[in-house]
Amino acid sequence: MRAPRVVTLTTDIGSAYAAQMKAVLLERLGPGRIVDIAHDLPAHRIEEAAFLLARIGPAFPRGTVHVAVVDPGVGGARAPIAARCREGSFLVGPDNGVLAPLATRLGVAETRRIDPGRFPRRRSVSATFEGRDVFAPAAALLASGRALRSLGALWRLSPLALPEPERSGARVRGTVLHVDHFGNAITNIPSSWFPDEAVVVVARLGRGTRRLARRRTYSDLSRGAVGLLGSSFGTLEVAQREGRAAETLSLRVGSRVVLAEARRRRRSRVNGK
Amino acid sequence: MRAPRVVTLTTDIGSAYAAQMKAVLLERLGPGRIVDIAHDLPAHRIEEAAFLLARIGPAFPRGTVHVAVVDPGVGGARAPIAARCREGSFLVGPDNGVLAPLATRLGVAETRRIDPGRFPRRRSVSATFEGRDVFAPAAALLASGRALRSLGALWRLSPLALPEPERSGARVRGTVLHVDHFGNAITNIPSSWFPDEAVVVVARLGRGTRRLARRRTYSDLSRGAVGLLGSSFGTLEVAQREGRAAETLSLRVGSRVVLAEARRRRRSRVNGK
Amino acid sequence: MRAPRVVTLTTDIGSAYAAQMKAVLLERLGPGRIVDIAHDLPAHRIEEAAFLLARIGPAFPRGTVHVAVVDPGVGGARAPIAARCREGSFLVGPDNGVLAPLATRLGVAETRRIDPGRFPRRRSVSATFEGRDVFAPAAALLASGRALRSLGALWRLSPLALPEPERSGARVRGTVLHVDHFGNAITNIPSSWFPDEAVVVVARLGRGTRRLARRRTYSDLSRGAVGLLGSSFGTLEVAQREGRAAETLSLRVGSRVVLAEARRRRRSRVNGK
Repeated sequence: MRAPRVVTLTTDIGSAYAAQMKAVLLERLGPGRIVDIAHDLPAHRIEEAAFLLARIGPAFPRGTVHVAVVDPGVGGARAPIAARCREGSFLVGPDNGVLAPLATRLGVAETRRIDPGRFPRRRSVSATFEGRDVFAPAAALLASGRALRSLGALWRLSPLALPEPERSGARVRGTVLHVDHFGNAITNIPSSWFPDEAVVVVARLGRGTRRLARRRTYSDLSRGAVGLLGSSFGTLEVAQREGRAAETLSLRVGSRVVLAEARRRRRSRVNGK
Repeated sequence: MRAPRVVTLTTDIGSAYAAQMKAVLLERLGPGRIVDIAHDLPAHRIEEAAFLLARIGPAFPRGTVHVAVVDPGVGGARAPIAARCREGSFLVGPDNGVLAPLATRLGVAETRRIDPGRFPRRRSVSATFEGRDVFAPAAALLASGRALRSLGALWRLSPLALPEPERSGARVRGTVLHVDHFGNAITNIPSSWFPDEAVVVVARLGRGTRRLARRRTYSDLSRGAVGLLGSSFGTLEVAQREGRAAETLSLRVGSRVVLAEARRRRRSRVNGK
Repeated sequence: MRAPRVVTLTTDIGSAYAAQMKAVLLERLGPGRIVDIAHDLPAHRIEEAAFLLARIGPAFPRGTVHVAVVDPGVGGARAPIAARCREGSFLVGPDNGVLAPLATRLGVAETRRIDPGRFPRRRSVSATFEGRDVFAPAAALLASGRALRSLGALWRLSPLALPEPERSGARVRGTVLHVDHFGNAITNIPSSWFPDEAVVVVARLGRGTRRLARRRTYSDLSRGAVGLLGSSFGTLEVAQREGRAAETLSLRVGSRVVLAEARRRRRSRVNGK
């Protein structure tokens, strides 16, 4: 027997609109489970939602149906799509890039453009809320075992290239991809590029330059100090102990970050004069 | 076999108080499911919650138990009630109007005043949180199949008349009934009263008057522009592309909106000089 | 057959990080249920979270696994722990005091220091998110029936003494332990210490002194008035009718509150001249 499906929801639409999607999902979900990843994502920020979903989605069980609704183009030209990944999960949402990084991570086997005319039950489709009228019914059908091909014609998923970090000599250039709940600025720079958790890094953050301690934990920073930590996403974050680094340093999604390890002084004092 | 019940929660009480209601529901819910419609509704705004619940509630499966806790009069004279709707759903909450519009939509078969003295397990009832001490136990009993009549004496549900839109000649008068998560101002004016999605509407919004494009989707508006769209509630919304219309135009729940289609110019240019 | 387990989550980490914990829980939860107590608690405030969890936790069914992640010292010296309470519930989180008041309420039978090296599946442990990498896997194991002793060596849970109220003569000294969703300031003073709901209390609140009516319900206060009510936690709260008392009076968690019943005037008018 197949384990009950999980359906995740990653949106910027708030709790009450999300509940309307859940009402539709419940029509077919049976013992399946709905998990809210977030409904309070920054409005209309496709790239930030795409980053989060790509990092969080793979932790869910095989067969999970991931629904993303960050959809400023709702009702317009972008296609509503559903895709099956090679490990068995499904992706449902607008073809505006929000699903693309997760699709890249999981590997897509097949993508369809959702045609609401093929839903077994006729629904009117609002031009302002396809989350409820198109994506939730499609996700419910997939979660209940309906074949992906029944949802519409073959489609090619549009790519979204999140910024990639670059190395040139001692210097690393990266980008802030997410500001988390604590105000930590999550970059795309792999933590492994600065593995030594006891160095000083010279950081250009937006316009200013400052020296940041690379540390392992928040409590390795003194109270209120800003530093560089390995985030739980596997990349470096600019963090402030018991503070909101992004606000303190005026960092936002898209801010450029340039890092270089500070030249190490000869440890003259350690060896005596 | 009966499908497991769904219990929805629509409140202004925040997540931690809602969790206390869930603890009580779990005593009897078995495989039933709890769906949060919202816990962050504007505090004490009975009419806005009533509007939302009336629009969202009917999408849930037959037999759902809808619990509403927007209850500024908690512990006071208003009655705690439970009602059975004709299609089999139940309503539970204070008799302050918050349930009335949904009751009107679904049609009420029977209403009872909840008497906590009739609960099978004795509970102390706090004067400041009947959500936990009265409504959650009542909802749990209904969800577990207990008869409505066991909860208390017959009662007549108090009405709540949400403002109705009016037409007089070319002019339509309506009211903002909800400001949504994106800052869209949802009115009570049916979208079908302005079906043509390519006209200009002269709108009196609070004190100011402005011309608004009636459009189908957010992306039909230019960036930052304000317009009139068909909301997913079936009524017109004042929306701003990638902005918060209600804040931009100082609209709030209760704001009056007067609309009239602008006189169409003769399309002289289409037919040439 | 054992009823499916409930796992509660009480955190300051926001919805998206909490979803990562849920992905881990789902690996082993089976038909179990996850209940969000809160994910928006004030960041790093161990004592407020501890108070809330101690008051809310005992309402959940026996056998519930309570996970708390308010963890400013994540990745540092404090131990990750799991405990079994005498009535069968489990506590999982950092040994920084956040679990201690609930542990005191429920009575702890056994505490273990979680050793991730003993998890059946090897996991890398981030230094910045043990909620996902240590606490969620431990909670999932306990919820699936794994023995507590399998998680690590015996440990002694660190105490956290929340401030206690004091009486001296007619005067009561207490502390604000929680500011709730409505801005009510929840104190640690038992409501039963001021049982008469029709008196006036002289209150020193922070620096100012004012007379507050002790009342039973919010609607016993006139609109905008501040008063003393019995909160649903069993203690007195400073509340404002349709307002946010804590902001109005500059109260915060930790604020001292000194109360004394105002001298009653002889009821000369009642008995006539």
